[in-house]
Order: sequence, then C-alpha cells, then structure tokens
Amino acid sequence: MVVRVYTLAELAAYIDAELLGDAAQEVTGLATLQAASQGNLAFLANSKYLQFLENTQASAVIVDRDSADRCPVAALIVDDPYMAYAKISQLFSPSLVAAPGVHKSATISDSCTIGAEVSIGPNVVIEEDSVIGDHVTIGPGCIVGAGCSIGDYSRLNPNVTLYHGITLGQRNIIHSGAVIGADGFGFANNQGQWEKIHQLGGVVIGDDVEVGANTCIDRGALTDTQIGNGVKLDNHIQVGHNVVIGEHSAVAAGTAIAGSAEIGSYCTIAGAVGIAGHLTIADHVHVTGMSMVSSSLKTAGVYSSGTALTDNQTWRKNTARLRKLDEYTKRLLKLEKQFEQATEKNT
Amino acid sequence: MVVRVYTLAELAAYIDAELLGDAAQEVTGLATLQAASQGNLAFLANSKYLQFLENTQASAVIVDRDSADRCPVAALIVDDPYMAYAKISQLFSPSLVAAPGVHKSATISDSCTIGAEVSIGPNVVIEEDSVIGDHVTIGPGCIVGAGCSIGDYSRLNPNVTLYHGITLGQRNIIHSGAVIGADGFGFANNQGQWEKIHQLGGVVIGDDVEVGANTCIDRGALTDTQIGNGVKLDNHIQVGHNVVIGEHSAVAAGTAIAGSAEIGSYCTIAGAVGIAGHLTIADHVHVTGMSMVSSSLKTAGVYSSGTALTDNQTWRKNTARLRKLDEYTKRLLKLEKQFEQATEKNT
Amino acid sequence: MVVRVYTLAELAAYIDAELLGDAAQEVTGLATLQAASQGNLAFLANSKYLQFLENTQASAVIVDRDSADRCPVAALIVDDPYMAYAKISQLFSPSLVAAPGVHKSATISDSCTIGAEVSIGPNVVIEEDSVIGDHVTIGPGCIVGAGCSIGDYSRLNPNVTLYHGITLGQRNIIHSGAVIGADGFGFANNQGQWEKIHQLGGVVIGDDVEVGANTCIDRGALTDTQIGNGVKLDNHIQVGHNVVIGEHSAVAAGTAIAGSAEIGSYCTIAGAVGIAGHLTIADHVHVTGMSMVSSSLKTAGVYSSGTALTDNQTWRKNTARLRKLDEYTKRLLKLEKQFEQATEKNT
Repeated sequence: MVVRVYTLAELAAYIDAELLGDAAQEVTGLATLQAASQGNLAFLANSKYLQFLENTQASAVIVDRDSADRCPVAALIVDDPYMAYAKISQLFSPSLVAAPGVHKSATISDSCTIGAEVSIGPNVVIEEDSVIGDHVTIGPGCIVGAGCSIGDYSRLNPNVTLYHGITLGQRNIIHSGAVIGADGFGFANNQGQWEKIHQLGGVVIGDDVEVGANTCIDRGALTDTQIGNGVKLDNHIQVGHNVVIGEHSAVAAGTAIAGSAEIGSYCTIAGAVGIAGHLTIADHVHVTGMSMVSSSLKTAGVYSSGTALTDNQTWRKNTARLRKLDEYTKRLLKLEKQFEQATEKNT
Repeated sequence: MVVRVYTLAELAAYIDAELLGDAAQEVTGLATLQAASQGNLAFLANSKYLQFLENTQASAVIVDRDSADRCPVAALIVDDPYMAYAKISQLFSPSLVAAPGVHKSATISDSCTIGAEVSIGPNVVIEEDSVIGDHVTIGPGCIVGAGCSIGDYSRLNPNVTLYHGITLGQRNIIHSGAVIGADGFGFANNQGQWEKIHQLGGVVIGDDVEVGANTCIDRGALTDTQIGNGVKLDNHIQVGHNVVIGEHSAVAAGTAIAGSAEIGSYCTIAGAVGIAGHLTIADHVHVTGMSMVSSSLKTAGVYSSGTALTDNQTWRKNTARLRKLDEYTKRLLKLEKQFEQATEKNT
Repeated sequence: MVVRVYTLAELAAYIDAELLGDAAQEVTGLATLQAASQGNLAFLANSKYLQFLENTQASAVIVDRDSADRCPVAALIVDDPYMAYAKISQLFSPSLVAAPGVHKSATISDSCTIGAEVSIGPNVVIEEDSVIGDHVTIGPGCIVGAGCSIGDYSRLNPNVTLYHGITLGQRNIIHSGAVIGADGFGFANNQGQWEKIHQLGGVVIGDDVEVGANTCIDRGALTDTQIGNGVKLDNHIQVGHNVVIGEHSAVAAGTAIAGSAEIGSYCTIAGAVGIAGHLTIADHVHVTGMSMVSSSLKTAGVYSSGTALTDNQTWRKNTARLRKLDEYTKRLLKLEKQFEQATEKNT
C-alpha cells in the first residue's frame, strides 16, 4: 500500500483550483475539517460545516470563493469543493493494483484471450473462450465463466463470481461476493410443483459501472439483463432477470428489483426499496428509502411509501386503527352526509 | 458452451404437441414473439401478447388450441404453452457441465466418498467424511464442510459454501455465494453482554430444491433447519435457524425468515417479505411483496401489508397524519356519538 | 467432528449448578424437552414449556429452583437455565478446528506476521504486511487484504473476504461470505454523472464480535467504520461507511444501516430494519422488525414502524384510504368544527 505525498501546487493543478498559500506545502492525506491534522487537506462542501473552518488543524482546505476569506490556512478555491474532493480522493487511494501477471495458482482455459498488462490473482478460474481486456485486474478467488468478456481497466475484487456469457464494459469495479449471471427465478407451475425455466439470456453491463459487495444481477430468461453506462449499484442489491437500468442511475444498498422491471436513466433509488416486476420507471425518478414501487412511474419526481417510526406503544395503537381504516373512513363519510342532511333540515 | 439444434418434429415429440407445419424445420433457439427471428421458436402463454402473434418473425410458435388458427407460422399446439416453454428451455440451455473428473487443485479429504461421474472444479475443498453422490457437479471455489452429504445429480455453482453436517437431496441447484449451515443467531443475554449459544443442529434439504445466489440457510440450534422437496428459494434470502419450509413452496428474493418459523407447503412468499420467528404459516398461503408477517397464518389465502407509493409531498402529509391515527380515530368516534346524541335530542 | 461425552458431575461443575441425581450419569448431547431422548440434557428456560417437563425423555434437565421439584429426572439447578444452556452448548459443539498449520495451497506474502498455533486452510490468500494473531483459524478460500490485523483466537469461516487495512479484535467469529472493507457508496454528482469518491478509511472491529454470513461492512470514506466490543451482527446485514456501532449491540438479519449512522451500546435492532444515514441512536434503544428509522433516537426505548398484515382484500381497501389520509383527516377536522358551531347555534 503506497500512498504518495503531493504539494499544494500539484493538487491545485489537478483540480484546476486557485491556490492561496504556500505552493510547496506538502499534503499527506485527506481528512474532515474537524479531524484534520498537520499535513492534511480538508474540504468545505456544506455550509453547516462552516463552523469548523475557523479552528481546523488542516494545512489546507478546498473551499468555494465565498468561503475563501474565512479560511485560516492555505485555500484551494474551486466552484464545487465536493467534486474537487472526489477527484483528489483518487490520488490518495492506496495503490493496491498487483503487478501485472498471472498467479501460478490461476486456472485459465487455453481458449481465453488475455489482454496486456493484466493482473490475475491466486486461485482465479477463467473458463473457456472468455476475453479479458487490457489493464484488467482480477482479484484472488474470482471465477469467470465461459464466454465472458471483461472490458479494459475493469477490476474484479476478490471472490467475485461471473457465470457464463457475461459482458462487462470498461472501467467497471465489481466488489467482493457479487454474483453476476446466476439463473433468474423462473418456474412454471405444474399442478403445484415447479418446472424450471432455464435462463438462456445473459447480462450486459456498460462502461464505468460499479457493483457493490454481495450484489446479485441475474441473467435474462431469453434476452439479456442490461445495466447502462455509469450505473452505480451499492451492496446487497438484487437485480432480477431481464431488468434494464438506464445510464447513470444509482441504487443504494438492500434494494430488490424484480424481473423485467425497466428503470430509466439518471434515477436514484434509495436503500431497501422494493420494485415489482414488469413495470417501467421514467428517467429522473427518485425513490426514498424502504419504499415499495408496485406500478409504473411515468413522470420524473420524488416518490415514497412506508410509515414513520414512533414509540412502540403509539405504533401498536395506530396500527390497530389502520387495519380498520376503510371502515373508519366509511363512518366518516356517513357522518359527513348525516350532518349535511341534518343541517339542511334545520335550515 | 454447446447448444444443439432441434427439428420441429423432435420438439413436438419432447412436449407432446400437435405440429402444424414443416416437421424438418430446424430451431436454433427460443425467443419472445416480439424479438424472435428466423430459426427461433416463440410461445404464446398470455392473451395480452396475442397482438404480437400476427407479425412474429419466429419460425414456429407454441400455442394453445384456441390460438392455433391465428398463428402465421408453424405451430406446436399444447394445452399449456408456458409449461411447454419451460420444458423446452432445458434443451436450449448451454451444456456447461464440465467433463467428469476431479481438478488437480481440489483438496478432498481421504475419508470422503465420491460417486460416479462426478465433476469437481478447481480449488474445491471437501472436508472429512463427506459423501458426494453420482453425477454431482461442484463448481470452482466451493467449500464442502465435514460430514456433508450431496445427493445424485445435484449441482453446486462456483463459490458455494456448505458448513459441516449439511444434507442436500438429489437434483439440487445451489447458486454462487449461497451459504448453508452458518450458525443461527442465538445468544443469551448476560447482564447486557451476549453469551453465544453454539448451534448444534444441521440443515436438511430435500430433492429438487433450488437455492439462489447469496442466500443463507442457517443451521439449527438443537434440531435441523429443514427445506422440503421442490422448494425454490431466490437470491438474498435469509432462512433462520430451525426454520421449516414445506414442499413446493417458493420464496422470492430478499425475504428474511426468522428463526423457528414454520412455513407450509405450496406457499408463495414474494420478495422482500419479513417473517417473524416462532410462528406457523398454513399450506397454500400467498404473501405479497414487502409484507411483514408477525403472527401465525392459519388459513390459506393471500395476505398483505405495507403502504402504497405516492409522490413524496403527499406521502409526508399522510405519514404525519398516520402517526396520530389513533387520536384522529378517537375524535371520529366521539363525534359520531355527539352527533347521535344531538340528533336524538332534536328528534 | 468429535463430540465428547460428559458426566452430570462435570456439567454441574461447569455451570456451577446444584445437582439432584446420579453424578455419574453420562450426557451425549443437548435437546429440547420435547425432542430429548435417553442420554440427552434438556433445559427449561420459559414457563410455557413447563408442560413438557413431566414427560420428557431427557436424562437430565437444567431448571431453576422453582421448577426443580417438578423435574421427573436428574436436575441441574441454576438461577438462569437459559444462560446455563448457552454455556453448555459450547461443550457439545463439534471440534472442527483444523490442526495448526498452513495448507500448502495457501498464498501468504513473506511480509506477513503469523502467530502461534494458527490454522490456515486451503487456497487462503494473505496479502502483504498483514498480522495474524495466535490461535487464529482462517478457513478455506478466505482472502485477507494487505495491512490487515486479526486478533488472537479469531476465526474466519470459509470464503470470507477482508479488503486491505482491516482490523479485527480477539475472539471474532466471521461467517462465510462476509465482506469487510469494500468501498463505501460515495459519489459526487457531476452534471448527472457520478464521480467516485475513493474510500480512504478502514474498518476497526473490537473483541468478541460475530459477523453473520454474507454481511457487508464497508470501509470509511475518510475515517474508519467502527464496530464495538461484543457486537453481534446476523446474516445479510449492510453496514455503510463511517457507521459506528456501540458495544454489545445486536442486529438481526437483513438490516441495512446507511452511511455515518451512529448506533449506541446495548441496542437491539431486529431484522430487515432500515436505518438512514447521518443519524444517532442512543444506548439501550430497541427497534422492532422491518421498521424504518429516519431520524435520530435520543432516548432509550422501543420503537416501531410498519403496518400489520391483513388479508389482501382488506389491505387493498385500507391502502387506498391511506393514500388520502391527509384529505380524510382534514374532512374530519372540518366536520368537528362545523358540528361544534351548529351545536353552539342550537344552544
């Protein structure tokens, strides 16, 4: 794990910032305003943290122009400090990429095509006819099934499983425990017993996609499950067979997407959401955490379901009432009508 | 990945269909009515797709008798086209079963019994006293603990983990990342701290069971966790210790079943359902997605909980009201009574 | 799998119990009162099982003093029979710890420090500069990234993945498929596209922590994700980046904890709960199953959300009403006011 040190001049150039302070000052790492110490670079991306700027121990802070004059130390001035922080975070990420080469314990079919500058770790298995692009990293314990294709600069972290016939684009990051291409959940009911529908499609993933730890993307029944360019999937997500996710959508942890759902581009789906099958979600839809989406969403916007937390005693009372909400509502409507009639009679 | 080509005559015989068309016509794959091209076999299993029959480019379609005369190409006529599609899907599934044999990198205890025509992939570990049936496939990276038993024709996809003392029946399909036999979540509270209750039971799985990717089935505390014949579990399911699932029940992705719950036979549990512990669910119960089952269900039927999605603004208002539903209901009941009294007085 | 036999005298001494019965009686295993047979030890920890005491076939029962005189067989009398059962369960757990040693197929960097009496299974990979304590067991297929530290007597079950820079305390039990240290879900939005925020923190786990199968604990963005001493995490849990969980808290299966949430000590979080990010939960908070925690909980207590299960038809009606609850509530309030005015007028 090697992490470099950078001068403020280098960092300012990297994020195209105006530098107020000592260009030769060395930065050893990133930290929050509160936790930063000598040698750290911090950032101010949200005005509620402005209170921590004055006393920060950072050696420099990424700020926007409005806050620059309140910065007690060296300042890197940009339009969007959060984006600048994101870009600089890459510089301080430890260089863990193993040297190119294939570990002697890997089992790779002779029929595979392996690109240049590829790193393949211990106990990796790559089955017949798969194609691995240039600069790909495949961590220890990964299994790549037959007929897969992995685009340039993609990285499989340890213990990832790809079934056969899976296509990954360029610059993908797949986290440990992810399973791509397992059978979709398809069965025909034969007098109570389940006849398996063999899943003949594959999975096609675009460029710049990140797939979280232990996330599952099932293969399609007849056609392919499709994940668009720039999609970000968090951990523990279930993507059912034939699902389509449009470009640059992001899905948070624990969300389950049932088969044949089509999600648009630029959507954000929060954590632990359930999305029913065979529905369509428009572009720019945002669904809040733990919501249940059971029909199509045809217009952009923010959608929610679920109930708010209360103390358990209040919840028990409210829940009991909710079980009879239809009855109570009918009584309300009846009372309204009776009152109206009584009022009319009295008038 | 080898996929055969079949004649319509062969396919008709396989599904016991009446064939209208050229018996020698070759079929290279399955497709939907809309996506099918020359050489494909499609199927019409739902009248809402009837609109696509007329212009399908498929070479043949599986139809029922009522739709046969509207089929513009060769027809395979059966009573249940969906079931026929399921059966034929098997024929077009790529033959990925590795040739029988044990990969040289596998680590198998001398005390194991290994059946005939078994395929054991790279880096598989099988610990002492386990018994592997005939025609079993164990994919790369699988770990089979001590004292396990795997029935004939079962298949473990790559990177499956079985702890010790697990019994799988015949023709099981276990998907990657599944963990069977990890410790149930049992602790005794000792003045705020947790004393582990060691989990001494096992897991017993019947015949023809499918277990989805990254699904967990915990071992029992004292007795065994039991999964009946023909049960189908999707991905990301949690089956707690001592759970019993009856024959031919199916559970969709993301559902969590707490310890000692007993689920009947022929049930369907949709995705992301939560089932509390120590309850009983009758045969033929169907639970809709994201429902919370917190007490026993003694009669067959369809059950639900959860709230419907709305735009976020409406949801916020409704949710605030719901937090006081008991209070509002009491006010309704009081008003009803007051109105009744006022009406009586006026009469 | 070796399991010893114990005499009642040995067991009584182990749990500090008063023994009524034959001290030389041998016990071969633990069982419930109902399922126990000759040679088994049962326990009575809940008065609702008292009915099974009279006819138990167990050779001995762990009871409290109040129930001792109703025990038809040998009795081990203690204050807390459940705790005594927990302690004895350890004695009957099969001894599966492999003999110390490093399997020849393991790949361990020369720069690692490996303690005494360590067992490292087949195909384990340990990357540079990691430190493995004494009496540690690392099961087959585990990957330990660079710069990790694993405390004495900890056990990694098969196929666990630790990314780089992860610290585990002593006596941890990590179950199969768990992924510790994958990247937190951090991105900055750049005109609709997502710029990755590299995750520079680690994960620090205390002593006596258990992590369930397929659970994920993400590394911190800048600081470390922290799991306190004695914490118990069930299967399929998502712990986001920068989360802090206080000592001796327990979290049941399927719960998702979003980034930067801070959970206190001695909390219990039931299964399938969702906890939003950037909030604080006090010590001794208990959250019931499937609840959604979307703001901080500042006082100890029991909290809930969610709706109760009904038959599907009733649920549909209630849910439709709930979507208009704000409107109906306003009509109730208006009716109250109208009635009040009418009553005043009539008086």
